[in-house]
Amino acid sequence: METPSPALLIVGTVAFDAIETPFGKTDKIVGGAATYAALSASYFASPTGIISVVGDDFPQSFLETFRKHGILLDGLEVRQGEKSFFWSGRYRADMNTRDTLDTQLNVLASFKPVVPVTWRHCPFLLLGNLMPSIQSAVLDQMASRPRLVVMDTMNFWMETALDDLKRVLRRVDVLTINDEEARQLSGQYSLVAAARAILKMGPAFLVIKKGENGALLFHGDQVFFAPALPLEEVFDPTGAGDTFAGGFLGYLASTGDISFDNMKRAVLYGSAMASFCVEMFGTERLVFLSKDEIESRLRQFIHLTQFDIQLAE
Amino acid sequence: METPSPALLIVGTVAFDAIETPFGKTDKIVGGAATYAALSASYFASPTGIISVVGDDFPQSFLETFRKHGILLDGLEVRQGEKSFFWSGRYRADMNTRDTLDTQLNVLASFKPVVPVTWRHCPFLLLGNLMPSIQSAVLDQMASRPRLVVMDTMNFWMETALDDLKRVLRRVDVLTINDEEARQLSGQYSLVAAARAILKMGPAFLVIKKGENGALLFHGDQVFFAPALPLEEVFDPTGAGDTFAGGFLGYLASTGDISFDNMKRAVLYGSAMASFCVEMFGTERLVFLSKDEIESRLRQFIHLTQFDIQLAE
Repeated sequence: METPSPALLIVGTVAFDAIETPFGKTDKIVGGAATYAALSASYFASPTGIISVVGDDFPQSFLETFRKHGILLDGLEVRQGEKSFFWSGRYRADMNTRDTLDTQLNVLASFKPVVPVTWRHCPFLLLGNLMPSIQSAVLDQMASRPRLVVMDTMNFWMETALDDLKRVLRRVDVLTINDEEARQLSGQYSLVAAARAILKMGPAFLVIKKGENGALLFHGDQVFFAPALPLEEVFDPTGAGDTFAGGFLGYLASTGDISFDNMKRAVLYGSAMASFCVEMFGTERLVFLSKDEIESRLRQFIHLTQFDIQLAE
Repeated sequence: METPSPALLIVGTVAFDAIETPFGKTDKIVGGAATYAALSASYFASPTGIISVVGDDFPQSFLETFRKHGILLDGLEVRQGEKSFFWSGRYRADMNTRDTLDTQLNVLASFKPVVPVTWRHCPFLLLGNLMPSIQSAVLDQMASRPRLVVMDTMNFWMETALDDLKRVLRRVDVLTINDEEARQLSGQYSLVAAARAILKMGPAFLVIKKGENGALLFHGDQVFFAPALPLEEVFDPTGAGDTFAGGFLGYLASTGDISFDNMKRAVLYGSAMASFCVEMFGTERLVFLSKDEIESRLRQFIHLTQFDIQLAE
C-alpha cells in the first residue's frame, strides 16, 4: 500500500521535554520542534510529513496522535536500543527567559535525516532548527527545488557554525528567527537595519518573532506586523515559535499562494496557533483544536488590529 | 484683547533637559511633558492651552515657537528670579532604559497650577505626569466637567502618593501609562489582567504604552493594538510618551468624537507623532512637521497592519 504524498515536509526534533514554569512543572512530556510544527501545520495542510529521529523510548501513543492528525511518519527513524533527545528547562517569572537545566542529545548526536524517495518532490519544506549542515543535507536530497523553503535557526549555530549557516541561508526563501537572533546574525541593533542585512544573505522573506510582542514580516521594502494576542495567562511558552512556523507554512501550503499578501495571512494564522500553544503545557492544547476555534481567534486578530481611517488623496 | 478659547488644555512640565544617547549628547535644551504634548496636539487641535510654570531662564525664542504653533500661554507662569525645572539623563545602548543623572525641581517644587478663568469650560484636558494632588487641584478648578480627561502618571507616584493617585484616577476617563507602570499599579503581570484591574479603578479607557513594542487600548472587553512604526534608527526617545498623549488627545479634540472607534484612530495618530519625536534630539523634529508628513506616516501604519482575510460565516 502506497502512502499519500505529503503536502509539506517538516524536518526537526521529536523529543522529550521536562518543563518548569511559575505555574507548575511537568515530568518528561513529548516535545520537539517538529512535533509542535507538524501538529500546527496539520490543521491546514494534509498530510504533513515528519523527518526526524527518536529512540525506542518514544511512546507509541504519541505516534498514534501524529497519525490521527494525518501526519506521515515514513521519515521518522525509530532507533532501537537508543534514547530520544531530551531537554529540560525552567522559565523565569517573566516567562520570556528560560534556563536550560539539562540537554541529552541521545539519538540526535548522530542524526542523518533521510528524505523518503517518494517525498523528494514535495513543494513545501520547513527546515526546523538543527545543525546547518544537516539542513543543507536535507535540501541536497530534494529531487526538485521546493516552491518554498522555510528555515529556523538559533544563536548557538551563529556562534559555532556561521559559515555553514550562511551557506544554507542562500538556499532558503523564508527565515524565521527571534529579535535577539536577528540582531546577532546581522550585527545591527535596529530590527529594520537587521532585516535589510539578512535579506541580503539569501532569503527573500524574513520573519522576526518577538514573543509576546508579536512578529514582523519583511520582504524587500515591505513590512507587515502581527501582534501576539494579548492573553490573560501564558502558561508555557515552549514550542510557540515552532507552532508559529508550522501554522505559517501549513497555511501557505494549503492555499498554494506564496504572495506577500498571503504571507501576511500566514503570519496571522501562525500567531493564532502559537496563542493556543502557550495556553497549556507542551502540546496539550494543540492536539484537540477545532477549525472554529482557530477562525474565532482570527476574528480576535481582526478586532485587535483593524481600523478605518480616511486619508486625503 | 481677548485670547481665543483653547480647544484643549495641557497641564504638565515645561522644562530643560540634558540628554545623552548612544548617538550624541545635548546641552540644556527645552523639554518637559507639556512641551512635547502641546507641540504634538497643535498639529490637530488649535488653539492648545498650556498650564505650567517656568523660571526667568526660559528662552523667549521658545515661547515664540509655542505661539507659532497656536499654543496659548495664558496659563504659563513665568517666575522671576527662579529657574526652570531641569532633568538630565543618559540612555543605555538598548534605548529602552535610562539613568537619571540630575533632577533640579526649581520652580516645580512649589508649582500650584492656575487654570485661567476663561479656560475653565474647556472640553478636553490632559493631566500630564505631576504629583496626583496637583492633578486633582486642576480638575477642581474646572467650572464644568470636561468631556474627556486624559491622565498620565508614573511609578514614582505609585510608591509615594498611591492614595492621592487613586483619588484622581476615579475622576478621569483615559489613563496612559507604560507596561511596567500598569503592572505595578495593578499588581498583575499579565497586561490583560492588569488592564481589567485598572479599568475598575475609574478610567473607562486605558492606554498601555510599550515603547518600541507599540500601544494597547483597553475599553470594557475590547482591545486595540497599534504597533510602533519599525524605525531604522531611534535617535532620542525623550518625550515620545508625551508626544503620543498630545497627538492622541489633539486628534480626539479636533474630531470631537470620543467613541472607541475614533480612539483607535487617535492611538495611531499619537503613535505617528511619537515616531517623529524619536527621530531627532528633543523637540527638534516636532517643530517643523507638515500635515502631509503626518498623513504619509499614517499610510505606513495602514501598510504595516492592515490585511484582508475571508473567514467563514
